[in-house]
Amino acid sequence: MNNALCQMFGIEIPVFGFSHCRNVVSEITRAGGLGCLGTAYYTPELLEMELKWIDDQIGDKPYGVNLLLPQKYDVVGDTSLDPDALPKAHVQWQRSLLDSAGIPPLPAEERDALMKEELDRLHMTPEFSNELLDVVLTHSNIKLVVSALGSPPPEILQRLHANGIKVGAMTGKVEHALKHKQAGLDLVIAQGTEAAGHTGVVTSMVLWPEVVDAVFPMPVLAAGGIGRGRQMAAAFTLGAQGIWCGSVWHGTRESDLSDEMKQLLFKARSGDAVQTRSKTGKPGRMLRSKFTDAWVQADAPQPLPMPWQSVLNVEARLRIDRARALDYMTCPVGQIVGSINQESSVRQVIYDMLEEFADTVEGLREKAGLDA
Amino acid sequence: MNNALCQMFGIEIPVFGFSHCRNVVSEITRAGGLGCLGTAYYTPELLEMELKWIDDQIGDKPYGVNLLLPQKYDVVGDTSLDPDALPKAHVQWQRSLLDSAGIPPLPAEERDALMKEELDRLHMTPEFSNELLDVVLTHSNIKLVVSALGSPPPEILQRLHANGIKVGAMTGKVEHALKHKQAGLDLVIAQGTEAAGHTGVVTSMVLWPEVVDAVFPMPVLAAGGIGRGRQMAAAFTLGAQGIWCGSVWHGTRESDLSDEMKQLLFKARSGDAVQTRSKTGKPGRMLRSKFTDAWVQADAPQPLPMPWQSVLNVEARLRIDRARALDYMTCPVGQIVGSINQESSVRQVIYDMLEEFADTVEGLREKAGLDA
Repeated sequence: MNNALCQMFGIEIPVFGFSHCRNVVSEITRAGGLGCLGTAYYTPELLEMELKWIDDQIGDKPYGVNLLLPQKYDVVGDTSLDPDALPKAHVQWQRSLLDSAGIPPLPAEERDALMKEELDRLHMTPEFSNELLDVVLTHSNIKLVVSALGSPPPEILQRLHANGIKVGAMTGKVEHALKHKQAGLDLVIAQGTEAAGHTGVVTSMVLWPEVVDAVFPMPVLAAGGIGRGRQMAAAFTLGAQGIWCGSVWHGTRESDLSDEMKQLLFKARSGDAVQTRSKTGKPGRMLRSKFTDAWVQADAPQPLPMPWQSVLNVEARLRIDRARALDYMTCPVGQIVGSINQESSVRQVIYDMLEEFADTVEGLREKAGLDA
Repeated sequence: MNNALCQMFGIEIPVFGFSHCRNVVSEITRAGGLGCLGTAYYTPELLEMELKWIDDQIGDKPYGVNLLLPQKYDVVGDTSLDPDALPKAHVQWQRSLLDSAGIPPLPAEERDALMKEELDRLHMTPEFSNELLDVVLTHSNIKLVVSALGSPPPEILQRLHANGIKVGAMTGKVEHALKHKQAGLDLVIAQGTEAAGHTGVVTSMVLWPEVVDAVFPMPVLAAGGIGRGRQMAAAFTLGAQGIWCGSVWHGTRESDLSDEMKQLLFKARSGDAVQTRSKTGKPGRMLRSKFTDAWVQADAPQPLPMPWQSVLNVEARLRIDRARALDYMTCPVGQIVGSINQESSVRQVIYDMLEEFADTVEGLREKAGLDA
């Protein structure tokens, strides 16, 4: 394959893969696509270590990073995320939930240290984002930076472009895609509601062609609902020039999800990837669990606004993980979870996808009865 | 085009169109596809009249009907739909809502007659369904019956098959598709969450290939999110053998929606087609309005179970229609509403769709960089 996006990045296949896991990112790039590392919750030191590791795996091939580059830092950042400031009723409701399930509280002697460590990861300030950016700019194989929170501020965009880095942003709405175009970005990633994590309401089938037409001739990556070759082919018929996949890597051996979580994902059906506000306060698609279910029961409080729902969840998540309470475990995942049924590898996922993609394109005219 | 489905029904294009409006149905069939008449709320007399009218338009071409053929009639039917049995708090909340909006109550002297007429249309019993079926069987151009409420009972399936009629059913879940296959149906219509009316949660991108694989080699019609040729092409890449469209006809001059409603649809964006329980008690996708918004506000009661939410709504709908209260008007519509922006005709919709479809298939290899 060698379309415009392949040429833009010097890659062999227009397959862009997102993961928080360096092994997944480097394998996608090594297989001819472009891996993008999610950097939320990284410190500059850890990010440097991970990027260095990736550099060592990939030779001269390109890769990318996702950065949280909000226009308004107050949307997600707060330097004083004090759990003592949480509404008491919320804290009490969530503790009762876990107590009733027999999930033990954190050991008193460890609690404060554990909470502090997790809370530190939620911090985000403009200075902090700039520190991460400084790290990114010292790695010359990074050819793409994707903003997950709107168009990046103009000064950051300029700095990235000056370093030969293309800039993209996620969007779940035509209106936001148009803003990205006006801001001078190089590509947009149109993400349907079936994707993992924070998503809008419009599905990929409807969203992709809307965004493609709205930002033409800007290239569009299709995201949300792509886990196999037929869906890859659908992305191109709907006008995208490349694909962006996240959940499909969850089932690979390169993924650092726990074995327990992988087993939960293998068993899940497509309808088990539910939109919930229980994790961050904003609607995000996650694996359904007793935890996400509890948050939509009649007695549940309204989830808190960002970033407070995440602060509220720190203790619950630590308790659930420590207790290995499988029924309560969850992670961000899209509806393609239904087709992830056994452990594979990044390379196998890509190989299978390309094979089905080629078969689909080859058989399309016959399927539709065009030559009959 | 001449694929397996075209051959099954003797049609020129595998485009199946659903509408409650006879003019739309006959035009789809005349254009080479297969129109399907929605018969919910029809009396046998009215149904006979409509089918006779369609017969007169289409020569020897085939068409179909949707019938409500539930296995369990108590799910939707009840012979005593008495509005006086509704919870008082629900009635009061809804009346206050409309009163506050300045939407006048129904004139006292007409109210009972109007309510009775509407309520009669909600009735459904096994005897009633059989009366409709008797009417259907006297129209020999009807070649497809689609059940919207699960697989039809075996005796009805047998009767239809004995009359040379193919039988299909809607599904939003793989599990239901498998039941349809086991029941001996001829095709399934896999409908993604982006479709109008009662839908599940899984999107077309994810659902279609799942259903295609589950029921292979049974043919699958793709529904939900198809309003143009790119989406039609996506349906075939995802493994469907035909498409099933409903909302796309709303904007045609053959549609009997009011001009006011058409104007509302032309202005709506894709995200304005929201899933709501406010109409029937089951989640269904409708045009967002102040009415659907009110039902998700904090002070709103929980929608009633079927069929009581529909009973509750009879008075509200009559009031809103009489007052021409545009802000409160709604109708079932899918997310493709965002691409319906001006009045067209059934024939033009199909022509445009086929043209974009052909261009898409033609350009696919180049778009993906397969020949480069």
